[in-house]
Amino acid sequence: MARVLLPWSDLRVPAGLTAVHYDGSGAAPQDVDDVEFYVLPYDSGAEPRKLIPRLPALKAVQTLNAGYDDILPVLPEGVALANGRGLHDLSVAEHTLALILAAQRDLPRWFRQQPSGSWSRGHTRSLADCRVLLVGYGSIAKAIERYLVAGEAEVVPVASKARPGVHGIDELSALLPEADIVVLVLPDTPQTRGIIGAKELAALPDSALVVNVGRGTAIDVEALTAEVSAGRIRAALDVLDPEPFPSDHPLWTQDGVIITPHVAGGSDSFYPRAKRLVEEQLARFAKGASLANLVR
Amino acid sequence: MARVLLPWSDLRVPAGLTAVHYDGSGAAPQDVDDVEFYVLPYDSGAEPRKLIPRLPALKAVQTLNAGYDDILPVLPEGVALANGRGLHDLSVAEHTLALILAAQRDLPRWFRQQPSGSWSRGHTRSLADCRVLLVGYGSIAKAIERYLVAGEAEVVPVASKARPGVHGIDELSALLPEADIVVLVLPDTPQTRGIIGAKELAALPDSALVVNVGRGTAIDVEALTAEVSAGRIRAALDVLDPEPFPSDHPLWTQDGVIITPHVAGGSDSFYPRAKRLVEEQLARFAKGASLANLVR
Repeated sequence: MARVLLPWSDLRVPAGLTAVHYDGSGAAPQDVDDVEFYVLPYDSGAEPRKLIPRLPALKAVQTLNAGYDDILPVLPEGVALANGRGLHDLSVAEHTLALILAAQRDLPRWFRQQPSGSWSRGHTRSLADCRVLLVGYGSIAKAIERYLVAGEAEVVPVASKARPGVHGIDELSALLPEADIVVLVLPDTPQTRGIIGAKELAALPDSALVVNVGRGTAIDVEALTAEVSAGRIRAALDVLDPEPFPSDHPLWTQDGVIITPHVAGGSDSFYPRAKRLVEEQLARFAKGASLANLVR
Repeated sequence: MARVLLPWSDLRVPAGLTAVHYDGSGAAPQDVDDVEFYVLPYDSGAEPRKLIPRLPALKAVQTLNAGYDDILPVLPEGVALANGRGLHDLSVAEHTLALILAAQRDLPRWFRQQPSGSWSRGHTRSLADCRVLLVGYGSIAKAIERYLVAGEAEVVPVASKARPGVHGIDELSALLPEADIVVLVLPDTPQTRGIIGAKELAALPDSALVVNVGRGTAIDVEALTAEVSAGRIRAALDVLDPEPFPSDHPLWTQDGVIITPHVAGGSDSFYPRAKRLVEEQLARFAKGASLANLVR
């Protein structure tokens, strides 16, 4: 009977497989000679992947991260690797909506005045009817889009290449002057680095909101600091370059700027989705079918 | 040619109608003897409605509020009245989501640490997979529901009477122990006053979030203060009883409590929706059809 090494003990394991439990804390399990499928514990440092070369019967590894560069060097020839693509999408989308709504509905103002018991009121911006550029139109952006559509915002998707219903990144400069909100959901690549610089920020209308939940390198942070400190545009940022962002940088204390410390992906919504994926992969593995999310 | 009295000058007016502009500021317009349809300026105090009895040709009045008790006394016999039901729904829904996401994703923590430039991080709750009771299942709750569905929360509607897919308010006590989040969207009536008291709060699981965007009277505020100050549950409140809420009340400064000063309805999303409604009503009026949202 094939054995599988799993980080959680509450999973449905199909008939024909026996589960061994290893959550990444404490010593790695002994008696692993017949482990064929290994689901790496999530967010548990470097130890779990050191076990990979010590599993002689291994056929497949499942990581719960999207990235897997750190696994390839220890992955034996012929062993399949599946990643956790999509498991963080909804968590990031939620935090993105939290940032957008906080900025549009003046939450920082209400939170600031709460300790003094102030009932000072005011009219706010809205999300409804805003034109929102979604720059980087992958699965996270699509999860954000579902929220925006529910809120009756107008979504304008922008991807590296144009396709029906999606603008190409070469159209970005033409789109910026009509944007109320620009959401960046870009990876860090040579093409995305500094894609929002002084020229792009200057093209935005007054009071536009720049949101970044991808990678900090997409924005020229000094150009952004200049525009927000002039009071011309606003920003809500979960990622910065570098991270941790220097605590004495003037961006932290500008009006109209919200900063959260790269926490968009780290919420409870991850676990049920990760467990569901693992159960689906176990079912595939048990019947000899190809795994989903294969990256090697 | 029939004349219509409108608060905005940028509306599409159908052929056959002539518009007079009155936004509620300054003196009321003269030469109104042939005004047949009057759209009351929004949020402009008591002056605009005093004009109603001075319009001898008047056939219909449109208010942009949901409430109209202040108009009935000055409305002549035989004049129709339409209200602004639904125009604020999306604004309230947006703010409700802002409150829920702020609470689940720890925005008060990040905002508190921002001025010091702290990169201290942490895992947060999520909205996804939460079971959310929507108590008071009218048009505002349905707008909230669209957001919650986009975020993959589980929505449990509760209305005054049970119907297919909707629980009755008599089932509330049985539903509370399984709720992660309870959203109150109730008007102030003898039936709703104090509907969430000590017993109901005690029935909630630890760390549950109570959200109120309806009327403050629905919650026994002293019972709520006791539960949140014990650290047992959390709250996010846009409405309180009384308003303004006393600045020295201990609820303001409890951990796990977010208070905004009754600002859910007051955002920019109102105006495009109000203008759209007025243009639709003008089209109906021009062809002699019955107005929508008639309340008399």
